[in-house]
Amino acid sequence: MRNICMTVSYDGTEFSGFQTQPRDRTVQDELEKVLKKITKEDIVIHASGRTDAGVHARGQVIHFLTNAKIPIERFTIAVNTCLPSDVLVLEAKEMPLDFHARHGAKRKTYRYTIDNGKFPDLFGRQYRLHVPVPLNMEYMKQALSYIEGTHDFTSFTSERSVKPHHIRTIYEAKLVEEGPFIHIDLTGNGFTYNMVRIITGTLLKIGHGKKKPDDMLHILEGCDRSLAGPTALPIGLMLMNVCYDEN
Amino acid sequence: MRNICMTVSYDGTEFSGFQTQPRDRTVQDELEKVLKKITKEDIVIHASGRTDAGVHARGQVIHFLTNAKIPIERFTIAVNTCLPSDVLVLEAKEMPLDFHARHGAKRKTYRYTIDNGKFPDLFGRQYRLHVPVPLNMEYMKQALSYIEGTHDFTSFTSERSVKPHHIRTIYEAKLVEEGPFIHIDLTGNGFTYNMVRIITGTLLKIGHGKKKPDDMLHILEGCDRSLAGPTALPIGLMLMNVCYDEN
Repeated sequence: MRNICMTVSYDGTEFSGFQTQPRDRTVQDELEKVLKKITKEDIVIHASGRTDAGVHARGQVIHFLTNAKIPIERFTIAVNTCLPSDVLVLEAKEMPLDFHARHGAKRKTYRYTIDNGKFPDLFGRQYRLHVPVPLNMEYMKQALSYIEGTHDFTSFTSERSVKPHHIRTIYEAKLVEEGPFIHIDLTGNGFTYNMVRIITGTLLKIGHGKKKPDDMLHILEGCDRSLAGPTALPIGLMLMNVCYDEN
Repeated sequence: MRNICMTVSYDGTEFSGFQTQPRDRTVQDELEKVLKKITKEDIVIHASGRTDAGVHARGQVIHFLTNAKIPIERFTIAVNTCLPSDVLVLEAKEMPLDFHARHGAKRKTYRYTIDNGKFPDLFGRQYRLHVPVPLNMEYMKQALSYIEGTHDFTSFTSERSVKPHHIRTIYEAKLVEEGPFIHIDLTGNGFTYNMVRIITGTLLKIGHGKKKPDDMLHILEGCDRSLAGPTALPIGLMLMNVCYDEN
């Protein structure tokens, strides 16, 4: 038995999310279908976490067990040859049998991208939320700084969450400006359901002057979803990478 | 009567080119349909030039005559509200009645973008040609330098061209590297049919070592389409801007 770990990139636009759904097109189904074809086995993949419909990934990580004898350096090309154009395997590695893409994940980085231009940049509009109102960067940076550290993120978690608690650690929260684009980059030991999108929705309220930077602190402390801003659309969200070492 | 000039951006992916076609979806049809709705007139637009199926534009320029009394500053928003998400008006200006988007064009800049990464970058794959083989940048730069100046570009013109001659002036031809992406930027007083795509196809042969940089000169002097390389796919081509002043 071998444990194969793959780094996978996908454009979420045409997917109903990562995880298998009864009738919809999902990333998991596309990958499992191709892996079955190549290995002649019924492969079940495990991801570092699911992503919602419309959310993208540059570096999602998955693993699966197989008895196939395909050399590891051939896996990537074999799979990519069969995958549709919106999913791509960037790397395949053989891991110890106890490696698990979800349980072993130590850090993840998500990026949410806003196009703050008067008009949207058409080229890549599938990967950015167009927000044409003026946004105060300083307010947004200040608000974002309160997010760093270990907190109970219940206010920034969908009420549909079934997790026992919502305490997570954010190692870095920063705002990167690139022309008319604003990237919100969050690195943490984990993220609750809709967390990045609710943080973004709240930051947009603050940037637009509808809430104050200090409100971020009060919302965090309140542990009540109704205090935060709306859930930003999935279109601008990208899972950037997943790390498995301690550092 | 008013003469309205618009700068238009479009994602060519889902279009059968700019110009009206009997049955296919075209940029011209989408624009004329919306302008008819807004002005209540049968509007005919004239572009700086047509673009082929799959070719994109950041700054295409069009003009049309109308008696509509809509204030010029309202035109852009009125039109954008009705356009599909892959066409966008960036600017509308009122011009003298003798302004003509095609006849008046003095300079155009086209960009052809190659993704030279081992794997394609999925995010914007609609706007780049993926070429995963090693390319010699110095060879390509040298070859490109022969293109600058006034030449008969018959070797780099589709045999379907019906133009009386293919003499054009290229003011600037440069290669810009941006991570794994290679941009071929050409500015000239005009471009013959498929010219940028045939130049690109030839440069790729040279970059790949299948032709020598000096071959570019011989191909140019030969005035024979069969000497040049293949026509690169439309996917990587973008009309960047059109200038109407002499400088």
